[in-house]
Amino acid sequence: SSATTPITATLFPGDGIGPEIAESVKQVFKEAEVPIQWEEHYVGTEIDPRTQSFLTWESLESVRRNRVGLKGPMATPIGKGHRSLNLTLRKELNLYANVRPCNSLPGYKTRYDDVNLITIRENTEGEYSGLEHQVVRGVVESLKIITRQASLRVAEYAFHYAKAHGRERVSAIHKANIMQKTDGLFLKCCREVAEKYPEITYEEVVIDNCCMMLVKNPSFFDVLVMPNLYGDIISDLCAGLIGGLGLTPSCNIGEGGIALAEAVHGSAPDIAGKNMANPTALLLSAVSMLRHLELHDKADRIQNAILNTIAEGKYRTADLGGTSSTTDFTKAICDHL
Amino acid sequence: SSATTPITATLFPGDGIGPEIAESVKQVFKEAEVPIQWEEHYVGTEIDPRTQSFLTWESLESVRRNRVGLKGPMATPIGKGHRSLNLTLRKELNLYANVRPCNSLPGYKTRYDDVNLITIRENTEGEYSGLEHQVVRGVVESLKIITRQASLRVAEYAFHYAKAHGRERVSAIHKANIMQKTDGLFLKCCREVAEKYPEITYEEVVIDNCCMMLVKNPSFFDVLVMPNLYGDIISDLCAGLIGGLGLTPSCNIGEGGIALAEAVHGSAPDIAGKNMANPTALLLSAVSMLRHLELHDKADRIQNAILNTIAEGKYRTADLGGTSSTTDFTKAICDHL
Ligand SMILES: CC(C)[C@H](C(=O)O)[C@@H](O)C(=O)O
Ligand SMILES: CC(C)[C@H](C(=O)O)[C@@H](O)C(=O)O
Repeated sequence: SSATTPITATLFPGDGIGPEIAESVKQVFKEAEVPIQWEEHYVGTEIDPRTQSFLTWESLESVRRNRVGLKGPMATPIGKGHRSLNLTLRKELNLYANVRPCNSLPGYKTRYDDVNLITIRENTEGEYSGLEHQVVRGVVESLKIITRQASLRVAEYAFHYAKAHGRERVSAIHKANIMQKTDGLFLKCCREVAEKYPEITYEEVVIDNCCMMLVKNPSFFDVLVMPNLYGDIISDLCAGLIGGLGLTPSCNIGEGGIALAEAVHGSAPDIAGKNMANPTALLLSAVSMLRHLELHDKADRIQNAILNTIAEGKYRTADLGGTSSTTDFTKAICDHL
Repeated sequence: SSATTPITATLFPGDGIGPEIAESVKQVFKEAEVPIQWEEHYVGTEIDPRTQSFLTWESLESVRRNRVGLKGPMATPIGKGHRSLNLTLRKELNLYANVRPCNSLPGYKTRYDDVNLITIRENTEGEYSGLEHQVVRGVVESLKIITRQASLRVAEYAFHYAKAHGRERVSAIHKANIMQKTDGLFLKCCREVAEKYPEITYEEVVIDNCCMMLVKNPSFFDVLVMPNLYGDIISDLCAGLIGGLGLTPSCNIGEGGIALAEAVHGSAPDIAGKNMANPTALLLSAVSMLRHLELHDKADRIQNAILNTIAEGKYRTADLGGTSSTTDFTKAICDHL
């Protein structure tokens, strides 16, 4: 059984604060006796002196083989002709859906206490095609690509997710009143899939209106599915509602059932190595990885320990207004297990 | 002087609730003795039986001649092969900048009481190019076009606006980490203009981060300038922070100093003709038209009357939780003048 045979999972601690928050996950998992064995690989922008590479074939193969992994933040090398490592991983591993549950944290007060939604973002195409060129001097264009295949795939994932998680409604977010062909195709695919899920209410919301409604009344929404850039924008907006990227889990789903969970916040080089980082986003992402593996008991236990520690308020890291170190906060979570 | 020679301004009441809220503006302007004479034209989706046209040459010429106008909501004809009238007006009149001041209304409580910012949206190109096609079956693309000319023009407007209104900071919103060429050109133009305004702080914020910051701490922002679609999204998000599109003014600036102020909410056909509509957005837009004409005394007087009426809370329309009719609310504003 899974309690005795450990599952191997890939771990990319990443850059900056990555190694510290990854350490926190390892400790909490150990304390909770999660039957996972980590296979750790260095992927980041600081060149590994041994490999002289940002991303090795072995790192990719590790995720492909294990089908499950956790990644910390990776800084984007700027102006060095390098593509973002996040994007490279999405592309290489065909991580087609980015899933972000967003829930108000009990005890951590923001302007909203009623957020309980999931954003599901198409993660491979759209405005992220990388196709851009100068037409004439002073006139440039970018191509947004929408395909039937990728749209159906993410729509399928969204409805399947909604059903499996007892969710009632899927909202497709779009701007088809302006981009009739691209967003129109996206909607057409969502409608096709919606027909196979009569028990789930399906609706379409224009992105500008969606953002207005999210800030006025986020409890209106349940599951949201959308093209790449809208997902980028809306998932961060939603994170803001509950306190920021330091508190929100994220998981990328790839073809063949790969799941790469990740903290989506930055690598925070300013506080790296200072034992100050908040590991919550990576911990909650690790929990979503456990759910993907159907280790729900462990997931519940760890999630409760995290939320209770934050709610109690005694141990909080600086970003949440506290004075705890990463290690003290981690210890408090372990004590809550 | 402007107090004795009336200025002629175009008025497009628009569809649905448009005529009722336009009537409200006319009454308030009359009561405040604003030296404006309206030249009214029908532009809307319900075909005028006399012209059989949505938008006549005379309507466009009226704005071109008067250089100043006010428009109510116009419904977008769906699936009839017609382009949105809003977009047609932007294109025909070369309305290159959409300006939306967004301020918390004293006395109308939302989750935010500290919003005081201006969004300035490039209004003619970007994702709104209308250039889209199917590449092969199941693969479609849309073109986002960014030009140096339009980017410089809107950046100039933003910095000029910031300076003229005593604002301290301009933030350019972008996704140049992904769309390096298009959004990159937009940023390059903003930087060029920023150099001419050393007294204004210039910064660049990635759109996903911008949305997160807006919902966490909107008072961080001052003047925001951005490409078309980001402007569409962010201006509605900001409207949501203070209560919605029913409360936010908007003004479009065109080449040669044209100003077409507008209510950006919908035409609300469900309540049209029922004397229930909230005229606030159109009234505040009319105020921004007065400011464009430098009729600041009249603008201040009317704006205060509107805000005081809402703050007092005795007369509020249904959308703000009250029971007042459009005409009673309008009368209350006139009484406050
Ligand atoms: C870092 C950046 C390329 C990335 C994106 O735009 O997708 C980030 O914002 C995210 O959401 O993961
Ligand atoms: C109605 C629609 C075409 C329009 C837009 O997308 O620009 C609207 O959302 C706006 O902001 O004026």
